[in-house]
Amino acid sequence: MTGSLGYVEQQRVVLATEDDPLLLRGGARLDEVEVAFETYGRLSPARDNAVMVCHALTGTAHAAGLHLGAKKRGWWDNLIGPGKALDTDRFFVVSANLLGGCSGTTGPLSRNPATGTPYFLDFPLLHMSDLVAVHRRLLAHLGIERLYAAVGGSLGGMQVLQWVIDDPEQIDRAVVVAASSRLTPENIAFSSVAREAIMNDPEFHGGRYVEHGTVPRLGQKVARMMAHITYVSNASLETKFGHRRDSTGDDWRMGPDFAVEHYLQHQGETFLDRFDALSYLYLTRLLDYFDPFSDPWTEERLRSCSTRFQVTSFDSDWRFDTAQSQALAAGLERYGVKVDLAELSSPFGHDSFLLEPPGYHERIAAFLD
Amino acid sequence: MTGSLGYVEQQRVVLATEDDPLLLRGGARLDEVEVAFETYGRLSPARDNAVMVCHALTGTAHAAGLHLGAKKRGWWDNLIGPGKALDTDRFFVVSANLLGGCSGTTGPLSRNPATGTPYFLDFPLLHMSDLVAVHRRLLAHLGIERLYAAVGGSLGGMQVLQWVIDDPEQIDRAVVVAASSRLTPENIAFSSVAREAIMNDPEFHGGRYVEHGTVPRLGQKVARMMAHITYVSNASLETKFGHRRDSTGDDWRMGPDFAVEHYLQHQGETFLDRFDALSYLYLTRLLDYFDPFSDPWTEERLRSCSTRFQVTSFDSDWRFDTAQSQALAAGLERYGVKVDLAELSSPFGHDSFLLEPPGYHERIAAFLD
Repeated sequence: MTGSLGYVEQQRVVLATEDDPLLLRGGARLDEVEVAFETYGRLSPARDNAVMVCHALTGTAHAAGLHLGAKKRGWWDNLIGPGKALDTDRFFVVSANLLGGCSGTTGPLSRNPATGTPYFLDFPLLHMSDLVAVHRRLLAHLGIERLYAAVGGSLGGMQVLQWVIDDPEQIDRAVVVAASSRLTPENIAFSSVAREAIMNDPEFHGGRYVEHGTVPRLGQKVARMMAHITYVSNASLETKFGHRRDSTGDDWRMGPDFAVEHYLQHQGETFLDRFDALSYLYLTRLLDYFDPFSDPWTEERLRSCSTRFQVTSFDSDWRFDTAQSQALAAGLERYGVKVDLAELSSPFGHDSFLLEPPGYHERIAAFLD
Repeated sequence: MTGSLGYVEQQRVVLATEDDPLLLRGGARLDEVEVAFETYGRLSPARDNAVMVCHALTGTAHAAGLHLGAKKRGWWDNLIGPGKALDTDRFFVVSANLLGGCSGTTGPLSRNPATGTPYFLDFPLLHMSDLVAVHRRLLAHLGIERLYAAVGGSLGGMQVLQWVIDDPEQIDRAVVVAASSRLTPENIAFSSVAREAIMNDPEFHGGRYVEHGTVPRLGQKVARMMAHITYVSNASLETKFGHRRDSTGDDWRMGPDFAVEHYLQHQGETFLDRFDALSYLYLTRLLDYFDPFSDPWTEERLRSCSTRFQVTSFDSDWRFDTAQSQALAAGLERYGVKVDLAELSSPFGHDSFLLEPPGYHERIAAFLD
C-alpha cells in the first residue's frame, strides 16, 4: 500500500570550516559550507539502504512530505514515500539543497567569512564536482559510505553522472532522468538570455541588490517565464490552455490576455519569492560548462566503475531531448559502464520527470528492486 | 543569367487622409496613413505582371537591391532580381513596409493628427486585414488591379493568406512560406515574454519613451535575443558555433563566453538600432490574434476563390513548423482552394525562408512560371 510521508523536518549541518575548507575544482576555497537536507525512512543497521535524491536547477532539499504549517508537499512527493518507487519503508532517502543554491545550502548570498558580508558575485564559479563534493561530505556526516542508489532529474541527473565519475565506487545504482552530458548551443543560448535579463536589470546593482533592499524583479521574472516555456511542450500547453482568453480588465491590449499568458505570469511571479537571481546565474553557468566526457580523467575513472545506470528521457522533452540522453548513455558505454536507456512517452515535456507519465515510476521501482 | 539589382530608391505615398480615412477592422480610424515602398522591374503595359512581396515581423520595404551609400542588400535580394525566382526582367515587384511598422509606414510612433504628438499606446490594435487594406490602397495608387502573385514568408505569408480571404479575386498565385494560420500557445507564450520584458523595462515609460529621449533597451534586446533562438535550429547553432568560446576579457564569468552568446548579443544590439519596441508590441499582438479560419466570413469568401496557393514549410522550423503549414493548407482545401503543399529539407530553422536551401527558390520559380 502506498501512502504519503507525514510531517518532515529540514536539518542543517556545517560541512566545511576554516580548518577543513572545501577546495573547489576551479581552485577557490570555501571556508564555510552549510547544507540544508532532509531524510525520509530509516537507515538500516548495515547502512546499506541509503538513496540520495538530487534536485534540479531551482529545487530544494524538501523533496517529500509536509513541513509543519505548509500546504505544499515536497517536489518529488509522488515518487518518495511508503510503498512508492523510492519506498521509505525500505530505503533511507537523503535529499539536500545543492551548493550555490538559495534554500539553506551555502550560496552567493551566504556570508563570506573573509569579509563578513555576502559573497554576491565574489562567490566562486562552481563545477558540478563541487556540488558532488558537498553531498559526499553530507553522506560522511550521516555515516553512509555507499549508496544503494542516487536518483536525479535534469541538473540532478547530471549531478548523479558527475558523482559516479568522481567516485566510481560509491553508488551502486544511478538513476538519471531527463538529463544531458553536455548542453546544446540552444540550451546555452536560452540561459544566456536569462542572465542578460537579470544582470541588466537596473535593480541588479552589480549583484548587490540585497544591499539596496531590492531584487532584479523584471529580469528574474522574464528569465523564469522564458525558461518555463522550455520545460513544457506545446502539446501540453494546447491541452491545458489552448487559445482560451482569460482577461477581464482592460489590460488585455498588450498585457496578458490568453490563459497561457496568465499562467506564465504566475510562474514568473512565484519564482521571485522562491528563488534568488544570483543562484540562478551561478547554477545556469555551471550547466553551460558541464561536459564530463571531455574531461581527461573521466575515462580512467569510468574504467573501474561498477555502477549500473538507468537513463530515461521523455519523447516530448525538447529542453534535454532523447538525443542528449543517448549521448549520455553512449559516453558511459564507451567505457564499459552498463546502461539501461529508454525513452518514455509523455506529453508533458521536460517537466515529465516531476510528474507521473505511464511506466515512469514503475521503471525506477523495477531498477531499484 | 542571374544578376543583382543595382541601386534602388524607396518611395513614400500618403494613402489615407481625413477625407478618405482608413477604417480598421477593430472599429478605429486612421486619418493619415503613409506607406514606404519600393518597386523593382517594370510594370507591363497590360499591368499584368505585378508581384507583391510581403515582409515578416521586423522586415522593411527594402527587399532587394542597394540603397545609395549602403552596403547591405535588401532582405530578399537572393530571391528578387534579374533572372532570379522573382525575375525583375519579367515581373514588376512591389514591396512595402506594413502598417504598424517603424520603417516608413505609419505606426505607433507616427504623429496622431488628432493630438499632434505620436500615438504611442493610443495607436489602435491592428488586424491582419488592416495591413492588407493598406497594401491594397498602394496597388490602387500604382494602378494595379490584379496581382500575378503575392509572396510572403512568416508574417508576410500570413498577410498573403488574409489578403486572399479579404479579396479572393485580386491574387492569381499566392506563395506562403514558413507561415501559420494560427499561432500555437507556445508561439503566443514566447511573444508574451517579449512584451513582458519590453513593457516592464523602466525605460518604457508607459510607451512614451521617445519623449524621455530613451528606449526600453534592456527589454527590447532580451526580446530579440529570445526570439532569435526560435528563428534558428539547434543544428544550425551546432554547425555555426558548436561549443566554441570566444571571450578574451574577464567578462566571461557570467557574461557572454560561448560564441553563441556573443552572436545573440550582436543580434540583440543591432535590433535596437533597426526596430522600434512599440511596433514590436503591436505586430506580435496582431500575430497572437491571427486566426482567419475561425472568422465566419472566411468560408463565404474562399468558396469563390480562384487563387492557387503554394505553401512551403521547412523541416527544421520549430517556430512555424510543418504541422502549422499543413493546418493552413487544410483550412484552404476545405473550401476547395487549390494548394500545392511541401515540406523542404533545410537545416536553418525558421530563417530558412530568407536563405537558399536546396529546391526552395526553384520551387517558387516553377510555381510562378
